[in-house]
Amino acid sequence: MHPFTEIHDHSAASLGETALIERIREWLGASAPPSPAGPGDDCAVWQPAAGERVLITTDPVIHGRHFDDRASPEEAAAKLLRRNLSDIAAMGGKPSAAVLSLFLPPRTALRWLESFHRALAGEAAIWKVNVTGGDICATDGMLGIGLTLFGETVDNRFLPRVGAANGDWIAVTGALGGSLAGRHLRFDPRLAEGQWLARQPESVAMMDVSDGLAKDLPSMLSPQWQARVDTETIPVSPDAATMAEASGRSALHHALCDGEDYELLVILKSAADPKAFAERWKAAGFALPFTIIGRVRERLDGTPPVIWTRDGQAVTGELFQGYEHLR
Amino acid sequence: MHPFTEIHDHSAASLGETALIERIREWLGASAPPSPAGPGDDCAVWQPAAGERVLITTDPVIHGRHFDDRASPEEAAAKLLRRNLSDIAAMGGKPSAAVLSLFLPPRTALRWLESFHRALAGEAAIWKVNVTGGDICATDGMLGIGLTLFGETVDNRFLPRVGAANGDWIAVTGALGGSLAGRHLRFDPRLAEGQWLARQPESVAMMDVSDGLAKDLPSMLSPQWQARVDTETIPVSPDAATMAEASGRSALHHALCDGEDYELLVILKSAADPKAFAERWKAAGFALPFTIIGRVRERLDGTPPVIWTRDGQAVTGELFQGYEHLR
Repeated sequence: MHPFTEIHDHSAASLGETALIERIREWLGASAPPSPAGPGDDCAVWQPAAGERVLITTDPVIHGRHFDDRASPEEAAAKLLRRNLSDIAAMGGKPSAAVLSLFLPPRTALRWLESFHRALAGEAAIWKVNVTGGDICATDGMLGIGLTLFGETVDNRFLPRVGAANGDWIAVTGALGGSLAGRHLRFDPRLAEGQWLARQPESVAMMDVSDGLAKDLPSMLSPQWQARVDTETIPVSPDAATMAEASGRSALHHALCDGEDYELLVILKSAADPKAFAERWKAAGFALPFTIIGRVRERLDGTPPVIWTRDGQAVTGELFQGYEHLR
Repeated sequence: MHPFTEIHDHSAASLGETALIERIREWLGASAPPSPAGPGDDCAVWQPAAGERVLITTDPVIHGRHFDDRASPEEAAAKLLRRNLSDIAAMGGKPSAAVLSLFLPPRTALRWLESFHRALAGEAAIWKVNVTGGDICATDGMLGIGLTLFGETVDNRFLPRVGAANGDWIAVTGALGGSLAGRHLRFDPRLAEGQWLARQPESVAMMDVSDGLAKDLPSMLSPQWQARVDTETIPVSPDAATMAEASGRSALHHALCDGEDYELLVILKSAADPKAFAERWKAAGFALPFTIIGRVRERLDGTPPVIWTRDGQAVTGELFQGYEHLR
């Protein structure tokens, strides 16, 4: 059976990534258990017959998508490991081992492969990850490297993506937007921060911002809850301002929609004292900003999952879409 | 940096898969621990801080490589899971959970994806595997689905690939060759057989025959050991004979070089009684043939890792090469 179609409405692109994932979960049925044991979170949580739960995540880098000829092989290697580390960080876990999956056109240069793997070894040493195995597969043109990363929980705790409820606080680490100016190749996964956050009793849920706040925040909310975000509190990266000069869009638009921020988006219980929490954050030694950007409220029928406000007024517009993978 | 080269000698293809894997291990250095904790076996063996060892393997199916338009999406799904299951079987393990990695051109047909995933769910139910998560990534044309499979050991035992020594027996399950006649899409991973073999005190080492006996058997032997294989004892599949009629090559050549047999290649201790072992195999309820094909001897300098014999005489020739992935 030919797996492709020329009719847009019959194609994967017609659904987009989020709806396609929903559909795949439906097709997989009982073979894909509910999250966090099944798909839907930053990592899958696997309970072996013996021992503690294992966190598993998989993300590739593909030439022409996640890096291009302007990137060095060292940058591609760092991005591959770090984007997976960011998923472990997003659950509050500790990385441990990785397997590689190489998709190589036969004409891939050995010099490139050498630089890539030597850099990957350096990264693995920094983040204390062992490369335990892998697979090589020839392709007709696509160069991609997949990585599946295993992590362990700290004190058998992890933070899922969903779990926010009425009155909860929404917070984000660092600053958002403009990652394509270069940060998408040079970011630090927030492992120490994620582990600390997972241990705080006020923490309810967490994810990493990989597709942009505008797309990622709704994925944290069950249908009965709505996020109210004060756009003036959103920490906007200087890169977003730089990008805005060239793009003609606003820096805020870049902060909401660019993706690849790899910052942590955290939900704190309604009973939390955000000021005291931020002080504990600083006292724990984190120089990175930790910013409350909104709260969770009940969602009325027919209203969107997030209300973005400015001066207390709702802001609307197509400003607020994240990165769509399948266009 | 541009990752491709037009100069063959500088390309991945110039090395071939086996040498490239060697080189990658060298480049990865200390980040890739020695096998079985690191690369080199059918599965990686990962020891979490708490609990028992985990077996991990990763293999994809790619359109145009592992299946084509003549294959149904159901066959592609079965092949994807089963080729990974075969790696777990090759260590004597028990499969448990899987994550998917989808590489999709936007024009991939939803109908194909639906059939693929529904079939994968059916396969997962047969083999008692949970699909715990995954990732979708758009490509410019390549359709591929990667799968990383986790397994557990039975009684905390597993069989590595390397470990044969002087006098050991070499055995194989089933019959070899001609898988492209259709069996490469419809094979049974030898899970029950592998688990049984791993529990027998005579068993020393094991792997699955995926690249052909001619390529796989040498990968089981340390440089000081040589396999002596009597070609007349090799179980040749009827498919190999069918293929031979069309190809003009011998059925034996197909049995040695075709690959994708997914049978188990086993090393038994020199002290084993092969006849008694085969009787226990039958008594355990296995209808599948279990055939002794040779023994391990000391290897003299300058001689090949395997000596193939007929009527007690060495046979040579380019008959004896397995499947090369990177040509």
